[in-house]
Amino acid sequence: MRSHMQSLVTEVQASLTASLEAVDGSGRFRRDGWSRDGGGGGTSCILQDGAVFEKAGVNVSSVHGTLTPEAARSMGGGKHLGDEALEFFACGVSVVIHPHNPMAPTAHFNYRYLERGPAESPAAWWFGGGADLTPSYLFEDDARHFHRVHKEVCDKHDPAFYPRFKKWCDDYFLITHRGERRGVGGIFFDDLRDRPQEQLFAFVRDCAQGFERSYVPLVSLRKDMAYSEAHKRWQQLRRGRYAEFNLVYDRGTLFGLRTAGRIESILMSLPLTARWEYDVQLAPGSPEELLTRALREPRDWL
Amino acid sequence: MRSHMQSLVTEVQASLTASLEAVDGSGRFRRDGWSRDGGGGGTSCILQDGAVFEKAGVNVSSVHGTLTPEAARSMGGGKHLGDEALEFFACGVSVVIHPHNPMAPTAHFNYRYLERGPAESPAAWWFGGGADLTPSYLFEDDARHFHRVHKEVCDKHDPAFYPRFKKWCDDYFLITHRGERRGVGGIFFDDLRDRPQEQLFAFVRDCAQGFERSYVPLVSLRKDMAYSEAHKRWQQLRRGRYAEFNLVYDRGTLFGLRTAGRIESILMSLPLTARWEYDVQLAPGSPEELLTRALREPRDWL
Repeated sequence: MRSHMQSLVTEVQASLTASLEAVDGSGRFRRDGWSRDGGGGGTSCILQDGAVFEKAGVNVSSVHGTLTPEAARSMGGGKHLGDEALEFFACGVSVVIHPHNPMAPTAHFNYRYLERGPAESPAAWWFGGGADLTPSYLFEDDARHFHRVHKEVCDKHDPAFYPRFKKWCDDYFLITHRGERRGVGGIFFDDLRDRPQEQLFAFVRDCAQGFERSYVPLVSLRKDMAYSEAHKRWQQLRRGRYAEFNLVYDRGTLFGLRTAGRIESILMSLPLTARWEYDVQLAPGSPEELLTRALREPRDWL
Repeated sequence: MRSHMQSLVTEVQASLTASLEAVDGSGRFRRDGWSRDGGGGGTSCILQDGAVFEKAGVNVSSVHGTLTPEAARSMGGGKHLGDEALEFFACGVSVVIHPHNPMAPTAHFNYRYLERGPAESPAAWWFGGGADLTPSYLFEDDARHFHRVHKEVCDKHDPAFYPRFKKWCDDYFLITHRGERRGVGGIFFDDLRDRPQEQLFAFVRDCAQGFERSYVPLVSLRKDMAYSEAHKRWQQLRRGRYAEFNLVYDRGTLFGLRTAGRIESILMSLPLTARWEYDVQLAPGSPEELLTRALREPRDWL
């Protein structure tokens, strides 16, 4: 399973970076290989200040080593293991894409496979991940398309998956202090190990491979739309909220910061630029208010 | 003591907002009074997009009520009280000033008085606070001036204060995952209650009133300096680090977010604009690298 997952994330990285470069037209991904002192490493691919993308990161990593008991306790899936089984293996792909055009949505996905305990006989293994869409302006067709593709992938494996993981996503990406979600959702799951490993791998593979058709057409559709300075300002304010979620609530980010992961790879998720104004007021019925309403009350998009 | 502190923070707010408006020349503070459901309230004064200041907030609050046991446990000074004495009173002034010019430093201060238990016979009371300077470009004279004023204020009350609170500041404002401090420090203390209340109040009063002469001359000196786009970009990157510290580590911010304080007042500390680039490299000996070195290894400025 370790090598299956390593092949998958490498393929997904190659395919997605090629697609995004094609959409961008001029920006090229910078590839940085890195290795981890305790074991393993990864490759971060970052495209910054392209024609279409303000910042896009497509990172893969495959790391292993020994956890501190504290890190072990805060690790999803392994919670029931307590302080034993401190050996771990984690392999995943993590992607965040922020386009320039305020009409083109930001998107994120991450899929990962984890093990605890010795490689020969892991005490636990599990899959986690998900994908979510974060528009600054709400195009309902875009949200529907993104959800539809993810529902199709889920349904192929279990019709119970999409409703369960859609709700999990709405619950997870909540900026609690704002009472609003980061975006219009998608799917999210963690600690998945309730069926044979090969079945779950096939599901995660289809999710990771499906992201491209859930998102890239939306950027192609929106990347050249006209926009004003006011639209850009609103996008920057939404980018600020994105940073708030990632820095205050995102478990993966906080786990990475606390366990001294590779900081530049972890924080590539932050937007290139962000803005915080005091007490922003939205005109009722304005596009900005309509989006905010969708972030406050999650909808069934399908 | 409650009313002494309320008068102090109100006076400091009036004096500092007048000084900052005078330095800005055109921007005016917007004043927002607010009240808290559980008891008390405050006044937030925000100047946004002025001639000199990108964003400045001078907030006072005086709130009281009943804590949840969880909030009580995470409250500085009251830790020894455990789950009893859930009544609380907190009065303070909190200030963050972000100028436009990258040569002019950002500054923050906060002074507060807290009580736990019934108003007639508090189970505990304490003072907390401090002031720190966050330049994007290091002018050693500025750091020295800021520290010198704070040392003078401290020395008036106890020569042991400045070295102790200077070190506390360097330790507190650490962005752990970056291995660097938010700025060049100042003073910081919490849980101060080891001498008569009136003595500590006099110290806190002198600190709060002394901030103006520690900082305003620095802005006046730097606000009209020439700067390039590259300087502005570096300032924006430093603003990103400022947001990282406040959202990931600052105890006051996290306490406020978790206890559903007034979000707009709490997050006024965030800069108007911020930037995150992937893997920024600094030329050895460049002004950007010299600053970063000062953030990595705190110095004795005096």
